[in-house]
Amino acid sequence: MLTADRERLISLMTEQAEFGGTDAGGLHRLALTEEDRVARDWFCNLLDDAGLDVRIDAIGNVFGRREGIDPDASPVLLGSHLDSQPYGGRFDGPLGLLGALELVHVLEEEDLDTTHPVEVVNWTNEEGARFQPPMMASGVWAGKYDLDDVYAATDDNGVTVEAALEEIGYKGPEPAEPPEAYDAYLELHIEQGPKLEREKKDVGVVTGIVGLTWTETTFYGQPNHTGPTPMHLRQDALVAAGDLITQVPRTANKLSDTTRGTVGAIEYDSEAISIVPDEVRLVWEFVDYEDELVEAGYQRTLDEIEQIARRHDVEAESSEITRFESVAFDDRCIQAVEAAADDLGYDSMRMHAGAGHDPMNVAEVCDTGMVFAVSEDGLSHTEEEYTSWDDCYSAVNTLINAGYQLAK
Amino acid sequence: MLTADRERLISLMTEQAEFGGTDAGGLHRLALTEEDRVARDWFCNLLDDAGLDVRIDAIGNVFGRREGIDPDASPVLLGSHLDSQPYGGRFDGPLGLLGALELVHVLEEEDLDTTHPVEVVNWTNEEGARFQPPMMASGVWAGKYDLDDVYAATDDNGVTVEAALEEIGYKGPEPAEPPEAYDAYLELHIEQGPKLEREKKDVGVVTGIVGLTWTETTFYGQPNHTGPTPMHLRQDALVAAGDLITQVPRTANKLSDTTRGTVGAIEYDSEAISIVPDEVRLVWEFVDYEDELVEAGYQRTLDEIEQIARRHDVEAESSEITRFESVAFDDRCIQAVEAAADDLGYDSMRMHAGAGHDPMNVAEVCDTGMVFAVSEDGLSHTEEEYTSWDDCYSAVNTLINAGYQLAK
Repeated sequence: MLTADRERLISLMTEQAEFGGTDAGGLHRLALTEEDRVARDWFCNLLDDAGLDVRIDAIGNVFGRREGIDPDASPVLLGSHLDSQPYGGRFDGPLGLLGALELVHVLEEEDLDTTHPVEVVNWTNEEGARFQPPMMASGVWAGKYDLDDVYAATDDNGVTVEAALEEIGYKGPEPAEPPEAYDAYLELHIEQGPKLEREKKDVGVVTGIVGLTWTETTFYGQPNHTGPTPMHLRQDALVAAGDLITQVPRTANKLSDTTRGTVGAIEYDSEAISIVPDEVRLVWEFVDYEDELVEAGYQRTLDEIEQIARRHDVEAESSEITRFESVAFDDRCIQAVEAAADDLGYDSMRMHAGAGHDPMNVAEVCDTGMVFAVSEDGLSHTEEEYTSWDDCYSAVNTLINAGYQLAK
Repeated sequence: MLTADRERLISLMTEQAEFGGTDAGGLHRLALTEEDRVARDWFCNLLDDAGLDVRIDAIGNVFGRREGIDPDASPVLLGSHLDSQPYGGRFDGPLGLLGALELVHVLEEEDLDTTHPVEVVNWTNEEGARFQPPMMASGVWAGKYDLDDVYAATDDNGVTVEAALEEIGYKGPEPAEPPEAYDAYLELHIEQGPKLEREKKDVGVVTGIVGLTWTETTFYGQPNHTGPTPMHLRQDALVAAGDLITQVPRTANKLSDTTRGTVGAIEYDSEAISIVPDEVRLVWEFVDYEDELVEAGYQRTLDEIEQIARRHDVEAESSEITRFESVAFDDRCIQAVEAAADDLGYDSMRMHAGAGHDPMNVAEVCDTGMVFAVSEDGLSHTEEEYTSWDDCYSAVNTLINAGYQLAK
């Protein structure tokens, strides 16, 4: 079995956490910002130093390639992302990326050749925090999104993706598409949930990714002075929103043990306390591995919104802004990950990924699989996110052995 | 009986609506802004033209005085405010102020002397939209607030009240306090509620003002990735907020027919849909003429917040930011208003004011009363606010006759 260099892994993980690092030990490294540029430059140097051929494509994805023995064999790709949430953790993304690079380092050190080329990739803007949608660049690469549409997406300041890419020098010369057929893709990521820790497992063998819907709903009421306006005459958009906020998790609980329902954003701009709220915008989400349960959560909530609007005498408008179908990974990738964990003596479990990841998109191009590392308390998208070095190490060892198995 | 000059009233009401007027026919004339300055300058000219002695005090209150016959008689004061909500209506404030001025105009035209001096006042910052608290300047004048504390209050850009007064040239030379004893204060204001219209009355005889509490509550949850985090492990601050939002009006309804309970502000800053909301701030209000019912709403809601916090495994912090006790007006002022309405042949009703007004503060200095004008559909603090010229005229006639009765 291959074994990662634990000290190198810790050292590189610590180094990357400097770029956009926050006082609380997290990351503020939004996609295509100056912080992202610094991290990317550092990563490109690592690829160079490891002797890889570096390519940058038109959407800023960075590839490093180590050739295989068989000129006809298609590459095995491993990777993740360097960008973070506004106040995210330092493991979400970088651990998978440096884990992928570790395979190359170990192959070099052990002087091992592979039949297939091995490629390492940093995907642009996985998080979708600055530019929507998330997983934008793997989506373009996989042919799911149109490059020009994605270039035109803007951040809160009206800066386009294209301008941001040019600004940091990462609008690369390569087409944003696979230059050839790919054999397989593997990604290591932190679990971002509490299952592995609760089940006391070392690593997770991911069998697929949940589907989800995001829907935006706006309630329109009647602004009015609160003191003189009797309760029964009010058309209060915030009370309607309150009903929806409490209803969405109830609907999820009713649907199944696995369905998640969340109101994740609310916007009501007035600071004038004594006015009946007149316009409140919310975004709600349903997530499940069973696409029918996502659809059921969506439909039931639309019905509920109609009732809420009638009950509170307000208007409601809803429109779905994102829908992802669930993705089932390929058996050979699942088995490669599971076998690697077994052979390394790790206690593993099969599980779904509960959130979107670039592999959702890459799965449209080639066979795909994922390794999950333990997330302490299941925390992520927060500076408190934490994975112990032991757990990082186990996950990286699983990744590099699975990757070697596929590439060998 | 005195009668107002209807055409002059309409003409002045129409003129003032130009200063900060919005396309939708409302007003954007926040306290101590350039729009407020223009309206104040125009109003000072009107006072001059009417032959009044103009005084401006240290908190920007503008007084115009017409002397009485008896040098020992204390003045009768009438007034209201020129400032507006961010997108308020054009009657809220100006109607009462121009109604007060109308008394002076009519006295001059009819060549009528009064025993008491008659004063007209424009109170600074009634609305509290730009600077907190509302009714700030009548509060200073009545000795309820300390001038230096109020000077130090800042708007969202960090501009202090004092700097804003200096900027528009309305930090006046007179002390911000009554220069002598006052005999009485009368204010005409739109009802800002639907009662007069529903009861088909011409004017309202206000017997007092409701009390209220504003309390700020923040829920602290645990940010976490929504997809992988099971519903039962969540600490969702927004779901807790949703419970509070729906509970506050329920508590008001349970307490009495007259109690109003509203969540009037909510703040949750994240736009990241897939994160369990971690920090949500709300401001809630209880309003009633019975102070015990305000207190009961306050206490029950604090208890409810404890239960909500336990139920959703979140932390909650609450602090009361404003409390006004209810105010009962003086019989002689109530009777003067009621008699004026009766003598003019108007159909009137006694009622409480459902919202705060400067008379709350002035009542601490002298006997106080109010006249209400009909508010169409009870709308106010919105550009759609409307009072017909007929209803304006009836209310102004009631005001000037009541004022004349007290000053005569």
